[in-house]
Amino acid sequence: MPVIIGALRETAPHESRVSLVPEVAEKFAASGAHVVMERGAGEHARFIDSAYKNVEWLDSGAAVLARADVVLTVQPLGVEQIGAMKAGSVVIGFMQPHARQTEIALLRERHITSFAMELVPRISRAQSMDALSSQASIAGYKAVLIAANHLQKFLPMLTTAAGTIRPSQVLVIGAGVAGLQAIATARRLGAVVEAYDVRSATREQVKSLGAKFVDTGVSADGQGGYARELTEEEKKRQQEVLDARIAAADVVVSTASVPGRAAPKIISRAAVERMRPGAVIVDIAAEQGGNCELTRAGEVVDHGGVTIVGPVNVAATLAYNASEMYARNLLNFLKPAIDKGELKIDWNDEVFAQSCLTHDGVIKHEATRLALDKQVPA
Amino acid sequence: MPVIIGALRETAPHESRVSLVPEVAEKFAASGAHVVMERGAGEHARFIDSAYKNVEWLDSGAAVLARADVVLTVQPLGVEQIGAMKAGSVVIGFMQPHARQTEIALLRERHITSFAMELVPRISRAQSMDALSSQASIAGYKAVLIAANHLQKFLPMLTTAAGTIRPSQVLVIGAGVAGLQAIATARRLGAVVEAYDVRSATREQVKSLGAKFVDTGVSADGQGGYARELTEEEKKRQQEVLDARIAAADVVVSTASVPGRAAPKIISRAAVERMRPGAVIVDIAAEQGGNCELTRAGEVVDHGGVTIVGPVNVAATLAYNASEMYARNLLNFLKPAIDKGELKIDWNDEVFAQSCLTHDGVIKHEATRLALDKQVPA
Repeated sequence: MPVIIGALRETAPHESRVSLVPEVAEKFAASGAHVVMERGAGEHARFIDSAYKNVEWLDSGAAVLARADVVLTVQPLGVEQIGAMKAGSVVIGFMQPHARQTEIALLRERHITSFAMELVPRISRAQSMDALSSQASIAGYKAVLIAANHLQKFLPMLTTAAGTIRPSQVLVIGAGVAGLQAIATARRLGAVVEAYDVRSATREQVKSLGAKFVDTGVSADGQGGYARELTEEEKKRQQEVLDARIAAADVVVSTASVPGRAAPKIISRAAVERMRPGAVIVDIAAEQGGNCELTRAGEVVDHGGVTIVGPVNVAATLAYNASEMYARNLLNFLKPAIDKGELKIDWNDEVFAQSCLTHDGVIKHEATRLALDKQVPA
Repeated sequence: MPVIIGALRETAPHESRVSLVPEVAEKFAASGAHVVMERGAGEHARFIDSAYKNVEWLDSGAAVLARADVVLTVQPLGVEQIGAMKAGSVVIGFMQPHARQTEIALLRERHITSFAMELVPRISRAQSMDALSSQASIAGYKAVLIAANHLQKFLPMLTTAAGTIRPSQVLVIGAGVAGLQAIATARRLGAVVEAYDVRSATREQVKSLGAKFVDTGVSADGQGGYARELTEEEKKRQQEVLDARIAAADVVVSTASVPGRAAPKIISRAAVERMRPGAVIVDIAAEQGGNCELTRAGEVVDHGGVTIVGPVNVAATLAYNASEMYARNLLNFLKPAIDKGELKIDWNDEVFAQSCLTHDGVIKHEATRLALDKQVPA
């Protein structure tokens, strides 16, 4: 029997992405799978139903959940949706394992196999499945556009008949995928760009994009490509150098985050108060509590003339490309498990093994299991 | 006696620019003039009072008007403000001569000498005074940022681990100062750019910025650097070619305008309806009625999935640089008339002669006088 792959209209507020785009749906169909989708699923991302080939359209999300062997999602399913899934079926998507304990307990209870895109290992072979990275690159691009739209200055230098306009100074904090894309975008727009990351290995990447690396003399190289937490002494030293660079900036884009944990506080109130009136901070760590003490998620704050933007779900604002990239990530993840149209997961493959959250009544991800067992005895 | 030059806090809605910035105020003071300003005049443009040197601060706009020999403004003065000016004094700024007939009649009645920045001749020597151009270049830059922020796609091409993202297609209509800056900005951001103008002379400028020129086979080269009106037959031919390019675009930035007249309607409802859902039009001719039939000034319209943005006073959103450029335009205009700190206007200078709107009880600008005499017999 061909595996039935399903995709839903996302229901979370402001979520305009879709887990399947026409190009990817067609590739799944070509691999022998049967694709079912909820009508209008791609509408907010500007993929109309008629753009999809070889898809069976169903009238409701519940109908998709009742049919699908593998459900592809962007945002985690809610309790009611998990309840409507077929027993023993599979769900793949962002799972927010550290935050969705009720849902995860239910996935376990219903013997549903769930894969969390957050848990895909950061190995070379899995780069094409790395949805955190693909969505972060969108956030980095958009953060600079948001900043440029709030700033009362040009980013580029202009030479006009009425004299020269100086370029703006942009400081990017955190040189991960989002930060590097922010650097590239600010450079494209002609700004003078500095960047900072506690991981000194990012120095060459920052420089290769035409930005200056802010050297605080402190390094915090950590595991899995993320930063380790700094000591108090290191933090203080880092802060002094950074505060001076923040004060000099027209725009600060902050992107520092550690998955599943609160974002490090890097921009203090005092640092904001040293900035020029008219300066703009775009804090894309807002959903994790923000890199700036004054950030409020989903809001635009004015603090003494400094504008602090705390956008949420930034990737969804570029829903067309975000969905395209995310759906390709899902395709690259799932396709090795489709053999002549049938689902065969190779549990010896570290990608499947490590990204598995629940399977066969067991929580496979240790940190999630430990956190859950504290709250909800199995 | 040194000439007293005054600048006010602008009172028009959403007007955040200021007619004097610190750099320019200081240059006027250095030329021997005495500068008076209303407290907080530069606040919205992020120029705080303490940044200005050699300025006398007054508590109200009325106090400035009662003192100044030359009043520098951004937006036209209202009736009450004109009434508060010294008899025989001078005002320089945007005057909207075709729209402000009551105010112009009062300027004449009060024997005030007014210079309209809109009327500065477009000669080589006066380029550094060309405020329409300096402010238009800002609008062109900002229009692309507005479009990029509404678009659910990247402007640049991206090569990612999950495959390639195609660059967006941007069509710029009108290759004047605003259009050229829009082309440059969209190119900076990595979009594929086409541009169109009825004046065939713009072809080389468009190409030099890395954009493709849309050839409709129709030319409408006119006087003074602006386009002449096309015949019906020419319009139809132009429209057919353009409609196809509009339909292919992700973003259309339209900038076509003729000073003092309604903007030409270039983007029909039918053309919008051929566009892809998710496409974005930014119509910076919105204040002159718009280049698009569906534009509503000051609003964001959704028409079948196409977003049509009709921003007003776009230059004011970049108030810092806009004020800087505008104040430099005013300096370049007025400085030749300051001789050892005293005001001496050379009426044989074509810049002063042609940009003069009212002087000594007479409306000097013929089109304005003719329009006014129809309505308000002298």
